[in-house]
Amino acid sequence: MIHGRRSSFSDGDLSVDDRDLCWLALHLLFHGPSAATRRIASRFAAVTDVFRAAGADFDGLRLDGAAVEAIITGLAIDRAGLEMEKIGRKAYTLLTLDDPGYPGYLREIFDPPFVLFCEGDAETLRNPTVAVVGARRPTPYGRAVAEKLASDLAGRGCVVASGLAAGIDACAHRGALKTGRTVAVLGSGLDVSYPWENRALRREITERGAVVTEFPLGTPPLAENFPVRNRIISGLSLGLVVVEATRKSGSLISAKLALSQDREVMAVPGNVTSELSSGPNGLIRDGAKLVASWEDVAEALPSPWRENLLARRDEKEENSGASLSPDELRLLDELPIDAALPIDELAERTDFSASSLLALLLGLELKGAVVQHPGKEFQRRM
Amino acid sequence: MIHGRRSSFSDGDLSVDDRDLCWLALHLLFHGPSAATRRIASRFAAVTDVFRAAGADFDGLRLDGAAVEAIITGLAIDRAGLEMEKIGRKAYTLLTLDDPGYPGYLREIFDPPFVLFCEGDAETLRNPTVAVVGARRPTPYGRAVAEKLASDLAGRGCVVASGLAAGIDACAHRGALKTGRTVAVLGSGLDVSYPWENRALRREITERGAVVTEFPLGTPPLAENFPVRNRIISGLSLGLVVVEATRKSGSLISAKLALSQDREVMAVPGNVTSELSSGPNGLIRDGAKLVASWEDVAEALPSPWRENLLARRDEKEENSGASLSPDELRLLDELPIDAALPIDELAERTDFSASSLLALLLGLELKGAVVQHPGKEFQRRM
Repeated sequence: MIHGRRSSFSDGDLSVDDRDLCWLALHLLFHGPSAATRRIASRFAAVTDVFRAAGADFDGLRLDGAAVEAIITGLAIDRAGLEMEKIGRKAYTLLTLDDPGYPGYLREIFDPPFVLFCEGDAETLRNPTVAVVGARRPTPYGRAVAEKLASDLAGRGCVVASGLAAGIDACAHRGALKTGRTVAVLGSGLDVSYPWENRALRREITERGAVVTEFPLGTPPLAENFPVRNRIISGLSLGLVVVEATRKSGSLISAKLALSQDREVMAVPGNVTSELSSGPNGLIRDGAKLVASWEDVAEALPSPWRENLLARRDEKEENSGASLSPDELRLLDELPIDAALPIDELAERTDFSASSLLALLLGLELKGAVVQHPGKEFQRRM
Repeated sequence: MIHGRRSSFSDGDLSVDDRDLCWLALHLLFHGPSAATRRIASRFAAVTDVFRAAGADFDGLRLDGAAVEAIITGLAIDRAGLEMEKIGRKAYTLLTLDDPGYPGYLREIFDPPFVLFCEGDAETLRNPTVAVVGARRPTPYGRAVAEKLASDLAGRGCVVASGLAAGIDACAHRGALKTGRTVAVLGSGLDVSYPWENRALRREITERGAVVTEFPLGTPPLAENFPVRNRIISGLSLGLVVVEATRKSGSLISAKLALSQDREVMAVPGNVTSELSSGPNGLIRDGAKLVASWEDVAEALPSPWRENLLARRDEKEENSGASLSPDELRLLDELPIDAALPIDELAERTDFSASSLLALLLGLELKGAVVQHPGKEFQRRM
């Protein structure tokens, strides 16, 4: 891991002995791992050997002529040096494939990125991680479940990975930040703020977790980057939970990627009448583990993570009355503790709209403050 | 199968050659199949032989002395004769274990009832059957899904079996009656009207399906009868679908029974925040097939039923605009076809309560008249 690389470049000595620099050069030159880089790796024992090689050493590798020239002339290393300088200036961190701090699970996938650009605490990447992903426009149900699941997992030492997208991703990060740590994986360069609406959330993640990407500085959030990014989200993780997703959503592609990486695929079921639950329900139909609580996630993980997490089953729930919002507290005041109240009556007693009332009640239910009885009747529990 | 038995008793000749009478006598004497009747069956080749036997023939079978006496003296046959007379008077039907009309699948279970008392068309029992069961106090979601599922299955020639209880059972029967046939299995005698609230529904089932029970006339709906009754619901069926159920409900016992009978167990998932979906979700977690539509049920059935049902995939949906209720039509009028309307706005435009609005929208959605977008926004489709 390299912190503040500026000092090492101040003397202008861009040595090809610097493995990190070589990895970065290779990464920038070939835009990440590819068939070409796999052919290179099959010929050279160390990444530094690539940049010490002569033109003839690349014969038969079917590389682009310009790429070979950039390697031979030192242009590739120079470019990498400039990128490294920018990284240092921003106080970002670089993790390369053979760095001990590089996430172990990610290293095992078919095409691990050569470098990860990292903002925040790269140590976060060394903890057991579970990915929680889903729709960009979820229902209040999906939001509430994602947040609760992430908070329950993070509170027990499990890092929650997601994609910083609007919707479920943001809820997962937010939930995790309540009790522990989270990793956001971007589909753009670290210096690109996307999506704009999550910039405050991203600041929080940087302070108490990590934001990572394999895309060099300045890379815009192109649509084609996201499937590539998704393989890192699941690659980092022991398993992937899909919370809400339509039948044709990117989250289902993520689930397929996770499966191909031999990761546990999990999904939160939902009403079959909800378009946004058709994705997770379909995954479960096809064999994904059904997840209704963090314990279900723990049960699905490989040993020893499974046992480690389940050992924390009896710890107190993090969400106590103290974490209720003013609206939630106001609503709670209207609820009787000795009987259940139909939602219609609640609507009459308060000035909340029907949908915000439902969302609030759902949140209170997940926090254990309210219990729902059949027929949409609600009762206070605390 | 015996219709209007009265004529055969008018001469007072209660012959022990009458196999049906013997089955009924055995059934009444031992209150259905038991260890004692299994011991009897292991000694006598035919049921009629039991009632022709002498006292010594029962030695070593460890039978109750009074039972042996009732057999020897002819008292058991006399009692059966009286019951048969009552059955004839009510125009009920009796199906015995070796009757060709006795449901084949039920005959294969460990403890098939010796007789089935039947009201309505006993032919219904000869069709491929799927059981749909669930909570007595379901949510509008559960009601809508049960009714739609039953209607879709029945419309394709699959009989829907259930228990005539309030809630999901009633919805399943009602849905099936819209398009096809249904069987209600009681936990009481045929002449007992229970539950009272479903008496009109029961009349409909009698006219266009069958009501069956193994309990003799006059048997009250004792709590202990229902698990016994549940084995018939699943025993009659190729598979059992649980729609909504709490974690400790009788429906989960039914599911276990069905599993022990080697029947396909299926469940409709639901939001993990709904107590009433915890049962089905738990079943799915434990290996039950996830059911979101009738096609999922068909896929789970054994051949050739699977292929027979799926062949009817392209048939027109039974629920067209014509079957919409006045309330549904009124609500539909308020919905735009070119954009989605948030539920709050719908609530303002109409005078429906929040919960009835949701139930109506759910029904319309299931009928394909409305599509739901994320954020509880609804759009007209027809």
